[in-house]
Amino acid sequence: MGQLLDRIDSPEDLQGLTLPELNTLCGEIRQKIIETVSQNGGHLASNLGVVELTVALHTVFRMPEDQIVWDVGHQAYTHKILCGRRKQIETIRTQGGLSGYPNRAESQYDTFNVGHSSTSISAALGIAAAKKLRNESGYVVAVIGDGALSGGLAYEGLNNAGRFNKNFIVILNDNKMSISRNVGSMARYLARIRTKPGYQKAKGNIEHTLEKIPVVGSMMRDRIRKWKAVLKKILYGSTIFEDLGFHYYGPFDGHNLSQLLDVLENAKSIPKPVLLHVITSKGKGYPFAERHPGAFHGISAFDIETGQTSSSGKSFSDSFGECLCRMARKEPRICAITAAMQLGTGLAGFRQEFPNRFFDVGIAEEHAVTFAGGLSSQGMIPVFAVYSTFLQRAFDQVIHDAALQRLKVVLAIDRAGIVGEDGETHQGIFDVPFLSSVPHTVIYAPSFYDELEEDLYRALYEEENTVAAVRYPRGKELFRPVDFTGGKKDFDWYGDPQAHILLVTYGRLFSFACLAAQRLREEGISVRILKLRKIHPLVPEAVKDAAAMEKIFFFEEGIESGGVGENFRCLLDDAGFSGEYRLRGIHDFVKQASMAQSLHSLGLDDDGMVNMIVSECGK
Amino acid sequence: MGQLLDRIDSPEDLQGLTLPELNTLCGEIRQKIIETVSQNGGHLASNLGVVELTVALHTVFRMPEDQIVWDVGHQAYTHKILCGRRKQIETIRTQGGLSGYPNRAESQYDTFNVGHSSTSISAALGIAAAKKLRNESGYVVAVIGDGALSGGLAYEGLNNAGRFNKNFIVILNDNKMSISRNVGSMARYLARIRTKPGYQKAKGNIEHTLEKIPVVGSMMRDRIRKWKAVLKKILYGSTIFEDLGFHYYGPFDGHNLSQLLDVLENAKSIPKPVLLHVITSKGKGYPFAERHPGAFHGISAFDIETGQTSSSGKSFSDSFGECLCRMARKEPRICAITAAMQLGTGLAGFRQEFPNRFFDVGIAEEHAVTFAGGLSSQGMIPVFAVYSTFLQRAFDQVIHDAALQRLKVVLAIDRAGIVGEDGETHQGIFDVPFLSSVPHTVIYAPSFYDELEEDLYRALYEEENTVAAVRYPRGKELFRPVDFTGGKKDFDWYGDPQAHILLVTYGRLFSFACLAAQRLREEGISVRILKLRKIHPLVPEAVKDAAAMEKIFFFEEGIESGGVGENFRCLLDDAGFSGEYRLRGIHDFVKQASMAQSLHSLGLDDDGMVNMIVSECGK
Repeated sequence: MGQLLDRIDSPEDLQGLTLPELNTLCGEIRQKIIETVSQNGGHLASNLGVVELTVALHTVFRMPEDQIVWDVGHQAYTHKILCGRRKQIETIRTQGGLSGYPNRAESQYDTFNVGHSSTSISAALGIAAAKKLRNESGYVVAVIGDGALSGGLAYEGLNNAGRFNKNFIVILNDNKMSISRNVGSMARYLARIRTKPGYQKAKGNIEHTLEKIPVVGSMMRDRIRKWKAVLKKILYGSTIFEDLGFHYYGPFDGHNLSQLLDVLENAKSIPKPVLLHVITSKGKGYPFAERHPGAFHGISAFDIETGQTSSSGKSFSDSFGECLCRMARKEPRICAITAAMQLGTGLAGFRQEFPNRFFDVGIAEEHAVTFAGGLSSQGMIPVFAVYSTFLQRAFDQVIHDAALQRLKVVLAIDRAGIVGEDGETHQGIFDVPFLSSVPHTVIYAPSFYDELEEDLYRALYEEENTVAAVRYPRGKELFRPVDFTGGKKDFDWYGDPQAHILLVTYGRLFSFACLAAQRLREEGISVRILKLRKIHPLVPEAVKDAAAMEKIFFFEEGIESGGVGENFRCLLDDAGFSGEYRLRGIHDFVKQASMAQSLHSLGLDDDGMVNMIVSECGK
Repeated sequence: MGQLLDRIDSPEDLQGLTLPELNTLCGEIRQKIIETVSQNGGHLASNLGVVELTVALHTVFRMPEDQIVWDVGHQAYTHKILCGRRKQIETIRTQGGLSGYPNRAESQYDTFNVGHSSTSISAALGIAAAKKLRNESGYVVAVIGDGALSGGLAYEGLNNAGRFNKNFIVILNDNKMSISRNVGSMARYLARIRTKPGYQKAKGNIEHTLEKIPVVGSMMRDRIRKWKAVLKKILYGSTIFEDLGFHYYGPFDGHNLSQLLDVLENAKSIPKPVLLHVITSKGKGYPFAERHPGAFHGISAFDIETGQTSSSGKSFSDSFGECLCRMARKEPRICAITAAMQLGTGLAGFRQEFPNRFFDVGIAEEHAVTFAGGLSSQGMIPVFAVYSTFLQRAFDQVIHDAALQRLKVVLAIDRAGIVGEDGETHQGIFDVPFLSSVPHTVIYAPSFYDELEEDLYRALYEEENTVAAVRYPRGKELFRPVDFTGGKKDFDWYGDPQAHILLVTYGRLFSFACLAAQRLREEGISVRILKLRKIHPLVPEAVKDAAAMEKIFFFEEGIESGGVGENFRCLLDDAGFSGEYRLRGIHDFVKQASMAQSLHSLGLDDDGMVNMIVSECGK
């Protein structure tokens, strides 16, 4: 196994291989990906779907003179393996290892960093524009999935591509899925053109054949293309992509390497932006993933033989989904919205039980929030469940289409804080700064499942005319001290009531704070903990009592600038605080590692808290 | 004049009018709009373009049972006049008067607040979904311009409309313009279908005629529609909108009231989402505006006879445009990007001089930033000139497609701070909180034109691998004391070096601070001023010297939560500050008024500063 692959140290090495060898290579790569993801977790189904396409791209195009821009980037494992990172692929998504996404810092072959959806066409156009201004040769290729095509940014890119006359190619990698089943009119439209009776394919083949006859071929090809264009309009209408100024070819079988090589080669000579429609199967070559592409989209480590992951038990997402269903049974106004993250956000049950009140809008976070605003304006209670990192895309809509109009929109913010292996692009560290800058917005940060339920209830019923956000971390609730009763709504005290040192935090970090307090007690340092739950706007009573302390340490699992810690500090001034204040939050993008490793490096786990407090207060 | 209009107190009153009367009414409304805008300033060309369309909409649809959602909202004056605000229209855009945009707080006829582009389809879908869940009757109509159609959110809305089977109508108000001439493939596509030889129009008319014969008509209409669909495909191909699941009809003359009434009535009976393509002329009925729709898009008060505004002299925008041209003459890597704001951002000269390096991407801020990231990845220096309020739309792209990749992208942020008459939706008060939360981002806030030039230069050349923002206010530079030499780069001191009271501020507020210092001196209170210019990240030396003061007052023309004032406070802790700290920023959305009025109400002009400091430090 892996004999051919062992010889591929850069895409250059593909040039000597025959078609059968390239096909063999695809098998070896597929095996490598399955093994790697089974150990490290990661994106399996999307990567298995593009093995042939990636091999074909790197055979026909010559990076770095030509540039390939991957959309989302969760399909770039084959690319990484071919581009000098075969040996390191086993480190993918681990601390210090390869990123699970394209990353410019990692390799000259990674053209543009990515992790969020629908950026590839715009980025590729920027690259093409630079090349044009400098009279540089070389092609720019954007590879975008049909799911990513539901994002408005992709359309903005398509709409702006017309001014580029050549060397610009978009590959539509159509696997009939985004993360789960794709939605929206564009998806239905693709399904329709996918089934057209082979005409487009024929056109591509004929042109390719003619291409082989040099000069005459090229002239004849042009004439045939014109004639075909007329015939096509009569028989099939033009495609959306042609209406937007592209030459459209397809659909093609994305697992037929021979045809892909021909088609890509052919596309090089078209003096217009080209869109190639390629059909792939998510999970291709691994039966479990082919059958359950949603489950095998992003997955933790699994057993190759059985396809089983170690069952991981209830998460915050599950807890949210269950709570919302309970509430929706009693409250017909509740609607749930997801941007293609039905599974990840725990809404599968809601969809099942309340199909009419469930809205999957595709990868379209902006639309999700504005749509929620519209629902809310009619008295419904929309709940948009979204990962913190993706909510960044709807910042203006939260301001303009909800808060400004005093429309009650509930944001269930999943993956808030450090997310672990997905790394830099996915950390949920910005939602607190940006949401707390928006007037008429309330933010809750529960630490435990029961708090999540209470906070969600308050967001639904107690907050009127506001954007009400409930943010909770990826994964499970952590350590809860037996003597922590909780029960207060906006904030809670814990630990030694006589202490002069106060540790303030919220969300998941409370568990680490409790561990830290215990360890500090053993070292003879007595601390009290203020656990915030309504983190914005801050409740004056919480600040007032804190103002009597001598030293305050604030720990925040999010960007420090604009976070709760800074706000808390300023409110202490008004409350007459005259002690010392130390704030530790996040100052930079956070690279991939396990969640525990990241929190440790950031000094936000119990070790970090103990060290900071001992160094400032120790003997 | 205005005899008919005087009788219109609500849209109900349109019902009794004959077609000639409605046409007369349109003339009276047009006159009213021209007079109002000539006095108050506002959006003229866009409003004159939709007089007939609005009269037709309110005649055929019955608000509030039916709902009309305006996109952008700069075309809603006729709507306001018809909907019970005829008498107040003269107060539009003034303090305490009518908003220049639809506003739910103002009237039950204003369905959804707006001011930013491309939201109408999504909001209307939310409203339609709520109606459907409640089995309510009534139509939902979104009115969107061809310019707004270049925004990705509009496409996300179109893509999600397919699930609504009836009572959902999109009016494409095609005036061949966004704010200036429209760009992109969609614009070219619309131009193409606009000129098709009347077929679509004929179809609409035939169907309308058949509609009049009750039952048989409806059956025949269906049959004819099917036959037409085949014919249409053969002759014309299908439109993008039909590919996205709409029934498309048009193009229609948007100034032919009789036809509009027919077409709208007809659209009511179509059991599918409908898109009506209506052609209007920006500025219709006022020759100066018809000839110069760009100049008369948003305009200050003008003379009706001559079309002249009082010449207002050089602004920050002009200054920026001139600087950038000077720099671009020496530096071939500089590219300028605008999202349909060539005139507003002062880039007309750049476009003229460097057409190849100028990119108008349409109303597509997300694309603008990602495209800039692509340019930057190839070593170009992209400068995206954008209003502060619209940059909110590209928050995730600033993070994901620029800062995270250490790509140098320059943001020239115009209209930063209070913008005046456009009001709540347009205030530039969020850019500092959201940009300062993004790692590897630098923000400059010049107070004067010469500082703008220096800061722009630094952003272009001294900041490597960062997002470098230069933010400057709407309008002109303000008062500059003769003894203020300036000349330091990151911060400057001004006023009494012996004072124990420090006033800290940045940008335009420095002028007010100087006036305040002068007035305080007359009252026997001596203050020093720290003028910040590199406002993020803050320079340690600025904080260090400030830490020796007894009382610090920080004034900020932006949202306080997450602003510079909070950050400055926390840095003072590290510098050993033990005095008192008072922070005044903005806590809520800010309604329309003149810039001076707004700054006064917010306590951010010299009056506000003097009052605050006297009340805390006075005798």
